[in-house]
Amino acid sequence: MGREIVSHEDGAIYEFAPDLEGVTTVESGAQLTIETRDSLDGAVQAESDLLESVPEEVNAATGPIAVEDASPGDVLRVEIEAIRLAEDRGRVITIEGFGLLDGHEGIEAPRTRITPVEDGGSGSQHVLEFGDLEVPVDPVIGTIGVAPAGDSYTTLVPHDHGGNLDTTDVTAGNAIYFPVLQEGALLAMGDCKAAMADGEMCGTGSEIATEIDATVEVIEDPDVDLERPLVETPDAWKPIASAETLEAACELANEDAIELLAAEHGVDRTDAYLLSSLVGGLEISQVVDPLVTVRNAVPKEYLSDPF
Amino acid sequence: MGREIVSHEDGAIYEFAPDLEGVTTVESGAQLTIETRDSLDGAVQAESDLLESVPEEVNAATGPIAVEDASPGDVLRVEIEAIRLAEDRGRVITIEGFGLLDGHEGIEAPRTRITPVEDGGSGSQHVLEFGDLEVPVDPVIGTIGVAPAGDSYTTLVPHDHGGNLDTTDVTAGNAIYFPVLQEGALLAMGDCKAAMADGEMCGTGSEIATEIDATVEVIEDPDVDLERPLVETPDAWKPIASAETLEAACELANEDAIELLAAEHGVDRTDAYLLSSLVGGLEISQVVDPLVTVRNAVPKEYLSDPF
Repeated sequence: MGREIVSHEDGAIYEFAPDLEGVTTVESGAQLTIETRDSLDGAVQAESDLLESVPEEVNAATGPIAVEDASPGDVLRVEIEAIRLAEDRGRVITIEGFGLLDGHEGIEAPRTRITPVEDGGSGSQHVLEFGDLEVPVDPVIGTIGVAPAGDSYTTLVPHDHGGNLDTTDVTAGNAIYFPVLQEGALLAMGDCKAAMADGEMCGTGSEIATEIDATVEVIEDPDVDLERPLVETPDAWKPIASAETLEAACELANEDAIELLAAEHGVDRTDAYLLSSLVGGLEISQVVDPLVTVRNAVPKEYLSDPF
Repeated sequence: MGREIVSHEDGAIYEFAPDLEGVTTVESGAQLTIETRDSLDGAVQAESDLLESVPEEVNAATGPIAVEDASPGDVLRVEIEAIRLAEDRGRVITIEGFGLLDGHEGIEAPRTRITPVEDGGSGSQHVLEFGDLEVPVDPVIGTIGVAPAGDSYTTLVPHDHGGNLDTTDVTAGNAIYFPVLQEGALLAMGDCKAAMADGEMCGTGSEIATEIDATVEVIEDPDVDLERPLVETPDAWKPIASAETLEAACELANEDAIELLAAEHGVDRTDAYLLSSLVGGLEISQVVDPLVTVRNAVPKEYLSDPF
């Protein structure tokens, strides 16, 4: 019952391309442990380590992992069972030319703050130290995706194949679904954060190396076509969309939510749109990457497994 | 211990203007019950009542209520104790030229859906009927604000004085704070929804008449200058900002959050920015009004009462 370990030392990519080749091939249903290095490849270990610009290669994604029998038109489900921190500190940084408030008054770049990981005391949860403050450890996978259909995307960019989604719901206890766009799907992930706010305003969370326990499963002949990533939490289904503006991303995510609601309840798109305006709603994932990302939460009371 | 009742029949505005005159004057600490009519002034009572365009007058805001001793530079705190539904149905509608997906394929406008209010069964919570579905009643005040400093704003527009904020956190159990911009503050509110999704995508929630129990309080000589509305929930403080794009609104809300974090912890703006990227985060209020609105949640673990 051992988990197969896939390490960044086996392979890691900085670009999601249509012609990726797997570093390993696993069966549908495989339980994996995926080791990821931090998004900055270890370049920042102290507060004196300052980044003058966004590295040309960033967000190394461990893999790709080929999944047997995954074919275009299928859906790949990735259940995230655990994300363990693999080092004793994270780092949160500013870089000139990057981040929501880049160039605003009083916002200095570059700056690095090291956030040591400490035992949280009486409870079992670990915390990050940020100066005198403590921040709960709540790890997020920043970059996760599959080989795209046509164009290539660096691991700094989110799009319909996934990629740099920087979405706090991509965390232990949840599952994320991708459209399979190439034979074998070619899954890769990395760029984890020990903690991150919705929005990722400064451009990073607390970037850190991890070990991710995940189970991959191919859903053949799904009942609905999936165009973009979809995340499942205990309470909600959330289509995720990335675009040049938050408004455009909201439109895509709401369109996807409406499609699911209309199919589930046998109503037309307009009634699904009205319903989507009453329950759950739009959420911000990140506002700093070359495309920005939002999601549209639909409570599970209104939506069962769409596949 | 009786609450003073302020009804829309005493007065209601369709514009927040600098020279508003109060329909009543109350003391700081006054407990009020504010009666509001629905945002469409009763024009939509059946599914055959269709709106061809956004009415010239919309979102009637009951008041204005002058608060004694409120002067520019002060802060007005409005604690929302209860929002009771005052009619047996709400309405959720599309209007041509309005809403996130206006003009998209399969989105029909005008359309009206009546959402009857029903007893939720074993529990005490009421529900809305939406076709065969039930939606929990969770009332929100859509439009709430004070007399602005200079320019006037119709009740369709959100800005630094408040107005059409359409923010789900403006609900019972929470408090909202406004900068006092004119003598007496001149508070007005209306445009309530029996339920609304974050985003208010179709342009409305379930619009409904209500009775709001609220306590108003003047905070003189606040420790921090408040430029824009701020909402307090049991768990978080959330600066609210409106702008022409979601990106610009995110910048303003994050700036406000950083200002509060820097003052509380005695750190510079850059460290406050880094901290804001680790905890809480950006949330969407609405994406459909002439200006769009977001908020930046800061958990109370990191921020005490700033005033």
